[in-house]
Amino acid sequence: MTSNLDPKDWAAFRSQAHNLLDRCITQIAEAQQHPWQSPPEDAAERYAIGRHQSEGNELSARIDEDVLPYHGGNTHPRFWGWVQGTGLASDLIAGMVGATINTNGGGRNHGANEMERAVIDWTRVKMGFPEGASGIMVAGTSQATVIALQCARLRAQGTVRSEGTQAGFTCYAADGVHNATRKAIELLGIGHNALRLIPSSDGQMGASALREQIRKDRANGLCPMAIVGTAGSVDLGGFDDLNALADIASEENVWLHVDGAFGAWTRIADAPWRSLSDGIERADSIALDFHKWMYVNYDCGLALIRDEAEHRAAFAARPAYLQGADQGLAGGDPWFCDYGIDLSRGNRALKVWCALEMFGEEAFSEAITRNCELARLMGQEVISRGMALLSPVTSNICVFSADPDQTPEAQSALNSKIALDLQLSGEAVFSTTDVNGITCLRAAIVNHRSTKEDVIAALDAVVQAKGSTG
Amino acid sequence: MTSNLDPKDWAAFRSQAHNLLDRCITQIAEAQQHPWQSPPEDAAERYAIGRHQSEGNELSARIDEDVLPYHGGNTHPRFWGWVQGTGLASDLIAGMVGATINTNGGGRNHGANEMERAVIDWTRVKMGFPEGASGIMVAGTSQATVIALQCARLRAQGTVRSEGTQAGFTCYAADGVHNATRKAIELLGIGHNALRLIPSSDGQMGASALREQIRKDRANGLCPMAIVGTAGSVDLGGFDDLNALADIASEENVWLHVDGAFGAWTRIADAPWRSLSDGIERADSIALDFHKWMYVNYDCGLALIRDEAEHRAAFAARPAYLQGADQGLAGGDPWFCDYGIDLSRGNRALKVWCALEMFGEEAFSEAITRNCELARLMGQEVISRGMALLSPVTSNICVFSADPDQTPEAQSALNSKIALDLQLSGEAVFSTTDVNGITCLRAAIVNHRSTKEDVIAALDAVVQAKGSTG
Repeated sequence: MTSNLDPKDWAAFRSQAHNLLDRCITQIAEAQQHPWQSPPEDAAERYAIGRHQSEGNELSARIDEDVLPYHGGNTHPRFWGWVQGTGLASDLIAGMVGATINTNGGGRNHGANEMERAVIDWTRVKMGFPEGASGIMVAGTSQATVIALQCARLRAQGTVRSEGTQAGFTCYAADGVHNATRKAIELLGIGHNALRLIPSSDGQMGASALREQIRKDRANGLCPMAIVGTAGSVDLGGFDDLNALADIASEENVWLHVDGAFGAWTRIADAPWRSLSDGIERADSIALDFHKWMYVNYDCGLALIRDEAEHRAAFAARPAYLQGADQGLAGGDPWFCDYGIDLSRGNRALKVWCALEMFGEEAFSEAITRNCELARLMGQEVISRGMALLSPVTSNICVFSADPDQTPEAQSALNSKIALDLQLSGEAVFSTTDVNGITCLRAAIVNHRSTKEDVIAALDAVVQAKGSTG
Repeated sequence: MTSNLDPKDWAAFRSQAHNLLDRCITQIAEAQQHPWQSPPEDAAERYAIGRHQSEGNELSARIDEDVLPYHGGNTHPRFWGWVQGTGLASDLIAGMVGATINTNGGGRNHGANEMERAVIDWTRVKMGFPEGASGIMVAGTSQATVIALQCARLRAQGTVRSEGTQAGFTCYAADGVHNATRKAIELLGIGHNALRLIPSSDGQMGASALREQIRKDRANGLCPMAIVGTAGSVDLGGFDDLNALADIASEENVWLHVDGAFGAWTRIADAPWRSLSDGIERADSIALDFHKWMYVNYDCGLALIRDEAEHRAAFAARPAYLQGADQGLAGGDPWFCDYGIDLSRGNRALKVWCALEMFGEEAFSEAITRNCELARLMGQEVISRGMALLSPVTSNICVFSADPDQTPEAQSALNSKIALDLQLSGEAVFSTTDVNGITCLRAAIVNHRSTKEDVIAALDAVVQAKGSTG
């Protein structure tokens, strides 16, 4: 008897899969010909389950028609919206192998857990954390922040897992901090009123204002729990002075967490960008993503915790049905379920491992460095076209307004219109954000396919769109 | 200029990928020849990054040698340890396509979000939730439980996101509840002292004890926040009387959450198993996994929330750089980042969608039903071999002791030894758990490849291992 959930005809399935693989590789190889396009209006109907069910070539045909064309656009060389990585050909390898071995990374004794340890250890070294530091791969920085702050809270209140959170915890971050921090503080039951937003200047949290606020809170009977530094702010690409934050964290005995979602990867960039994240090695925890500036397939992030014991103490809890053993499948200590939220865990390490083994670390360093160079170039080209930067380009992010001579309202309307027009035409993808009350165009370059020619062509398109709008 | 993170030679890459795909398909098609095997002792060295870096065939060769053989065993037809799904050939399709489109499911306007809505909607219908109910795909039930209980808390305390959790929340579950509930309550800052474990009999939480405890807590000034019902307990496969729990939740005005990690899928099984989860449609929220009893590749779970407004209110928070738009890439409302922890999200829907479209819903119903039949058969075969069930087989889980005539200590040692021996020999995978002070053998059958012959052969192997041990 065979399973009714295995293909009835393996040869036919094999042929279908090979044909599809060919089309997938072609789509990746010809990424520049496939900009984002809006999903069809009847998308909900097209994707409804059970309306077209069949085995064999029809699924593949539906994928060709309905799925492959309606990607998110971030594979294209002129996509710089939000902070979205490009993806890699090695992800195809990881995708096939991951489906074949189908490992649960929550625990037990199998190769994927060893591989995850290898990826964490490689990252630990790059971030300058000591040997024996701990980590767990997660969907992304948002979840990594939850994990890190739960560790921070346990240090501040050893009884939190049994008794619940005490009143009066406070956290500190620059006013431009990503809202992942706010959401994490909410989820943990601390409440976002506890988040003190410290004014920043030149993209950095003010050190003396931070120290003052901590002391003031403590004098008022509150309990400072964590400072959240930012390596790469999402709006403007700013970097906190992490050494200054580490000094304060140490003096004030407060946990230092760093949101390094993309900016942590300046650690492997060339000068001068590498120095932006100096001091990150002094943090108690770092949250970062591989799917942004390490370019791998979504989703793939990491929580890195300096002290393994603190990490484990914040999450470990295994009942009888999950007891480990010295040998056999129940072996393989430690189990990752003791270091995070999820008990069932897919295989994220494979994507990073395949990428690094296929292309080598050096190629990533070069790509990250080149992205910073392109952002700098974009800043220059913005100015040379009579447009205005709304913030200096310090890393890979460029925010600008197409017509600085108009009123803020008119600029906002114009920039929004240009972003939309270029998305719809497929010429380039900028997203928008608000700086000094102006909705501006924003490029975050975490795209290994982008070239100088792409930057120049995109800014020419901005000028043209501005002309046709104005 | 081409990217240094695209293959230098696409034709060579294409050839490598096709060769690897062939080997992946063969490994899946011949799953019965690939039981779990222990990773090599030098696994840490083998997986270390950068020691063997190369492009081209060498990565593929390393995958053959070091990765494919050391899977977690759950693809094999005689794997019944813990609760781990088998995986599907359609996952290969999903893996390739997911790597190609590389969508971020946090938001914006692209096909993958529509597909996720289709998967959620299909599941909503199966679970009997009303139209307009809400959901979000997550790693698994652990994270889905966090999301559901955060919604429950917001109902009980509207100010929790700003002010943090109030003191005195209490939650209720059967004494055999999965520790995902305990971990969620800890993470939320409520503290596990707030979890009242209600004694169960015949695998069901005692209804009158539950009602009494809620009233007592309320009389003591506490705030009952959520009842957690279980559809499929992890140890014994028991099902709470969900209609009884829904009555109490309604009378007492308390949120009813159901942990349906695997057991929720009895909704698509035949009688009599289907009725086990009757009443689940009355819950306020359900957490469930697709990677268990819907057999898809890890990880893949779902939080289903009855009231979309309550779901959104618990998580939505979008700053300027994430503002939506009517058109273009920033369109596509609602965005999934407003319904859960993660802002960056991979594409889990694709696995479920490809599986259902390739095999059809009916094939899943049959496989789930057959798994229950096999567990019942296993129970009969255990007894006919003079061994003892430690709990009646009610769904897909069978717990037994190989030699009921020995002391509890001796039984525990014997059962542990048998589980280990069979894992190491590759004959079958049982895990162990504790029932009535005895470490017993435990099979959770969520395996579409298992047959009657597998069950009989595995129990013969148990008897043989027992003989050679005793």
